[in-house]
Amino acid sequence: MTPVVAARSGPREDAERFPIPHLEAFVATILTAAELPPADAQTVARLMVSADARGADGHGVFRLPQYVQRIQAGGINRHPQMRLVQDHPATALLDGDNGMGHLVMSRAAAVAMEKSASTGIGWVGVRYSNHAGPAAMYAAMPLEKNMIGLYLAIGNANHMAPWGGTELLLSTNPIAIAVPAGTHPPVILDMATSVAAFGKVKRKLQDGEPLPLGWMIDGMGQPLTDPAHAHDGSLLPIGGPKGYGLALMIGLLAGTLNGAAFGREVVDFNADSHSITNTGHCVVAIDVARFMDLDAFKAAVDAVCEQIHGSPTLPGAEIRIPGEHSAALVAESRELGVPLAPAVVRQLELMAAEFGVNPL
Amino acid sequence: MTPVVAARSGPREDAERFPIPHLEAFVATILTAAELPPADAQTVARLMVSADARGADGHGVFRLPQYVQRIQAGGINRHPQMRLVQDHPATALLDGDNGMGHLVMSRAAAVAMEKSASTGIGWVGVRYSNHAGPAAMYAAMPLEKNMIGLYLAIGNANHMAPWGGTELLLSTNPIAIAVPAGTHPPVILDMATSVAAFGKVKRKLQDGEPLPLGWMIDGMGQPLTDPAHAHDGSLLPIGGPKGYGLALMIGLLAGTLNGAAFGREVVDFNADSHSITNTGHCVVAIDVARFMDLDAFKAAVDAVCEQIHGSPTLPGAEIRIPGEHSAALVAESRELGVPLAPAVVRQLELMAAEFGVNPL
Repeated sequence: MTPVVAARSGPREDAERFPIPHLEAFVATILTAAELPPADAQTVARLMVSADARGADGHGVFRLPQYVQRIQAGGINRHPQMRLVQDHPATALLDGDNGMGHLVMSRAAAVAMEKSASTGIGWVGVRYSNHAGPAAMYAAMPLEKNMIGLYLAIGNANHMAPWGGTELLLSTNPIAIAVPAGTHPPVILDMATSVAAFGKVKRKLQDGEPLPLGWMIDGMGQPLTDPAHAHDGSLLPIGGPKGYGLALMIGLLAGTLNGAAFGREVVDFNADSHSITNTGHCVVAIDVARFMDLDAFKAAVDAVCEQIHGSPTLPGAEIRIPGEHSAALVAESRELGVPLAPAVVRQLELMAAEFGVNPL
Repeated sequence: MTPVVAARSGPREDAERFPIPHLEAFVATILTAAELPPADAQTVARLMVSADARGADGHGVFRLPQYVQRIQAGGINRHPQMRLVQDHPATALLDGDNGMGHLVMSRAAAVAMEKSASTGIGWVGVRYSNHAGPAAMYAAMPLEKNMIGLYLAIGNANHMAPWGGTELLLSTNPIAIAVPAGTHPPVILDMATSVAAFGKVKRKLQDGEPLPLGWMIDGMGQPLTDPAHAHDGSLLPIGGPKGYGLALMIGLLAGTLNGAAFGREVVDFNADSHSITNTGHCVVAIDVARFMDLDAFKAAVDAVCEQIHGSPTLPGAEIRIPGEHSAALVAESRELGVPLAPAVVRQLELMAAEFGVNPL
């Protein structure tokens, strides 16, 4: 099996839809066939399908072949002994023992929520984790306890140079923040610190389209618009030096502070399926009720959303609150099934045949 | 006195330099003459001069006339009874009772550090504060205890529309993060969520120069390049919807969560010197030693800085680590004095005459 590229398949018109429980069971079966413990396989499957259900299809079921390849190559510990190497009233450092990122981050979020319930906030740093899917998923976990969630991560491949430089020392290190609302969907921001994700660049290559100006530069600082040369260039950070600075700080907080990989230590998990990635993240849970009455807060968030939604728009434009598009996609996926691109479906069918399990 | 505009004076060639203690004493004298208690006047003066010393001249002594105007107009409480309206092991909510922002935020940072020393992290939300100067200053306070600092704030005037909208519901809400290093200066990011600060727009107006493309748009979404029409347009967020999303989340965390003003509630403190601004901020202190050995962490941060500095540059470019330029300016200011633009010096001399105190 060749390394799987990280292009987003996108919710296209030709997508096929599958009921959530059916798709979860299929993914869990494959992961179990790859010898993950069944309970862990189910947890990972649930989160992977949840990514597709919310529209983060570049971080969902699409990744299954790559995950299985890494598990089989020995790049993932199937039986990690996760442990808190630091444990304080409001902070902890979790060593994921190179387990599946979804399992490590679920544990980290649970610890953050426990600490927050006790002290008002829980900040849990993580090392020796792996790619864990969309950032929003972990920022959103504390919402179930009426907590605000914050998530930072080091991406699993460096595609961005420092501002003014040419060496790809930075990933598109994402930040996600989730805030509970009342009648409005939770406000959830999930953003990379680059103008475009590298997966979008790969999609342009697949589609035979040039890259828009402002996405990438080449080694001379000139605009790079031919996606076939993307590996010779650098993604551009949002706001120039600002996005570079933000990616750097996220690297220090999610990586260096936790003893996780950053800079030249980062393993390109698209090109290498066996090396330990030592992926760093951190997840934070903030207990809203420690600041103000929960219902009053939710009403205030609703009011902010309504004020923004009710404000005048540019000609032909609409105003979105972060998170509401995902919430609509989740509702749609529950009703109609989770959309998968035909290419992804074909890859899943190949895997089913390979493992001798029932087809999708 | 007419309302003071928030243009940056900038460290120009024609700047005059003043020794730090001398400038601090002058500012404290003026603030005392405006009937701030002497100890408070000294604290505010020290922080205001510190802003200029680090190059944040748009948030330093330049603001003195505006602050005095607000104090005299009754828009600032000279004798605030600050209190923790919420106080938990790792979080607190500080009501600043409409005191000077510098005093409120110094108190908030102290509380955050105390809580962090006890639990690993302290997150302090603030309401009923005021403009407090550069974000970096408060993110940097925890450095003295070998803690990482994080600061979020709601700006004191709305200059940015939601993405797709035209109503100025957002400020350029800044974020600052400070991380201690070993031999390298602390890594300190201080960024607005807009491409350009509104002060820079005003500077272009003063200098008779057009605005670069990408700074602002007009009410039809077209590029706005004439700074004389800046008040009819919107600053653009970094990364389009990303910067908008970040400004919104900072608003929810620094404002809504603390019961502080956000959206239409925000008072334009440049145009109105008497209304209570109910400015919201939050400051966070994270105790590095709760994650890893302090010296090992500092060495790791140095290694990241050296890796980035030692990496190849674009033709004619240099690579900067956030915070090192400010550190160099601080060293220069200590040696040569703090630079003030001639227009600022003239304004200070006018104030000295007005209050009958010794000239600068």
